[in-house]
Amino acid sequence: MREVKLILVGCGNIGRAVLGSILDKGRELKRLGFSIKVVGACECNGSVVDEKGVDLEKLVSLPIDKCCGWSGRKTLDVIRSVPADIVVEVTPGNIRNGEPGLGHIKAALESGKHVVTSNKAPLVVAFKELAGLAAKNGVEMRYEATVGGAIPIINLYENELSPNSIVSILGVLNGTTNYILTKMSQEGVDFDVALKEAQNLGFAETNPDYDVKGIDTAAKVVILANALMGGDVGLRDVKVRGIEEITPEAVDLAKEYGYEIKLVGDVGNLEVSPRLVPAEHPLNVPGNLNAIQVQTDIAGPITLVGAGAGPKETSSSILSDILAIARML
Amino acid sequence: MREVKLILVGCGNIGRAVLGSILDKGRELKRLGFSIKVVGACECNGSVVDEKGVDLEKLVSLPIDKCCGWSGRKTLDVIRSVPADIVVEVTPGNIRNGEPGLGHIKAALESGKHVVTSNKAPLVVAFKELAGLAAKNGVEMRYEATVGGAIPIINLYENELSPNSIVSILGVLNGTTNYILTKMSQEGVDFDVALKEAQNLGFAETNPDYDVKGIDTAAKVVILANALMGGDVGLRDVKVRGIEEITPEAVDLAKEYGYEIKLVGDVGNLEVSPRLVPAEHPLNVPGNLNAIQVQTDIAGPITLVGAGAGPKETSSSILSDILAIARML
Repeated sequence: MREVKLILVGCGNIGRAVLGSILDKGRELKRLGFSIKVVGACECNGSVVDEKGVDLEKLVSLPIDKCCGWSGRKTLDVIRSVPADIVVEVTPGNIRNGEPGLGHIKAALESGKHVVTSNKAPLVVAFKELAGLAAKNGVEMRYEATVGGAIPIINLYENELSPNSIVSILGVLNGTTNYILTKMSQEGVDFDVALKEAQNLGFAETNPDYDVKGIDTAAKVVILANALMGGDVGLRDVKVRGIEEITPEAVDLAKEYGYEIKLVGDVGNLEVSPRLVPAEHPLNVPGNLNAIQVQTDIAGPITLVGAGAGPKETSSSILSDILAIARML
Repeated sequence: MREVKLILVGCGNIGRAVLGSILDKGRELKRLGFSIKVVGACECNGSVVDEKGVDLEKLVSLPIDKCCGWSGRKTLDVIRSVPADIVVEVTPGNIRNGEPGLGHIKAALESGKHVVTSNKAPLVVAFKELAGLAAKNGVEMRYEATVGGAIPIINLYENELSPNSIVSILGVLNGTTNYILTKMSQEGVDFDVALKEAQNLGFAETNPDYDVKGIDTAAKVVILANALMGGDVGLRDVKVRGIEEITPEAVDLAKEYGYEIKLVGDVGNLEVSPRLVPAEHPLNVPGNLNAIQVQTDIAGPITLVGAGAGPKETSSSILSDILAIARML
């Protein structure tokens, strides 16, 4: 039995879902030869640390504002000095400067710890720097959860599609905009009505710009371009157009000719824009689903469809990354 | 650089595509740390053997009837006595008795060689026996290419979706029937017309029973049930209904209510039958595409769409299995 020691940075919805999945899957993990011990949990720059293992049942049931009241050691101190194999970084990030996740991930890699993250911001701001830092320190940085939630696109390419070359990657990578466009298509409502409904259902933020203007999709395009297509690009390299100006008339006209309008991230061409997708095309997925089509030289086009968000679904990708590192330990 | 020695059994379309991909990807394989050497190739119970490596360029360009004229050592003799790491078994198989692949795979496993196969028949007839034989001899048997052609469903579950539990698997697993049903839906033609067109295009055999009666789909259901859902089942355990009786009227009526009729393999319930699939559902894929939806407990439903057949596309799965074994050598 290999014991894998984790430090969890971020005890919000995703962090709790990761802990929940670790608890739920204890027996299955044991069968695979691993036991996971959380030796530290950080939130709001406070922490609980227990080298014998934090009580996960208790942690999961603690309201987030209680975690935010933790007075223990500061996050960077825990990352640097508590002995652990992997730092799981799942804080929300600022897409412009990558913080606070960027500092967390750097500290982890520099102190020789592997990193698993769902945090797009640090990777969008400093992908090459972080990948270099991981290589220099002989550790892994894994980030399956940053793109497509539960969809295992990055690891699929590294494992099952190797040694295919990628010709192109196209994706419906943002659930909020996909929900809005699906509503507009199915019910003929206009953008504002669909957005309002998405907000009421919790699929869209009060300030929806990040989603509807295509920035979230662009962030994912940056990560896929750097991770899978050998790029060295940032947000400024991506041409972005959102869905705010899509009218019900445009949606109807598209339908009349057998198409749906989808917000598509085109990774090879570094472009995010509303595009006409044939109704029967595998990228035409409804609701808040995500879909990613990888065109490869041997296998042809492979499309993956799944939940693009949701704490539990995302925890599947995080757990998968943790296990991939655990197998190498 | 790790040299991986292969014996190729079956030099038809798939065998040649595998050799073609090995040739095309030589540099990429080297980058991954491997060089693949084919030390034997068998066809029509004859062979060429060269422990220094068979000339692949020459082999690929040889017409199949020339291979079938080989007088060298018999296939089972080559499998048993030529030193090699992996036997790649890609002969066509008899779904009732599994031969000749069953004998080939047994001989390979018993002589301590790993096996990679695209041959459904031996696995449908004797999955547990072969898996047991592999375990007993401490070798791997990999068979990604047997289901869904290029779609990496089996390895995806073992790697990226671990430690998810599977709740259900539904699949459009046969390209021929999907092509026929798509034609019927898009053009309003009846079954016989669509079948004739599929035959003219080479998508359907002169005797189409194996596909249209659902037997091919049932074979894949058996493999997925045994491989991913812990089953110990054979063809006789699957309830099968084909698509021969689907009328254009039924297809039209389904469409009117927002559905398409698809031949669905339901792995959990061991059933193959035409089913109503909502038009916007990820399993509703057109033409000869395949689609497989795995419902998991953490990641939710994940759907994979891709080419279900085609020698080149299938060679991607075979090469991926070869590499998975090579990494363990």
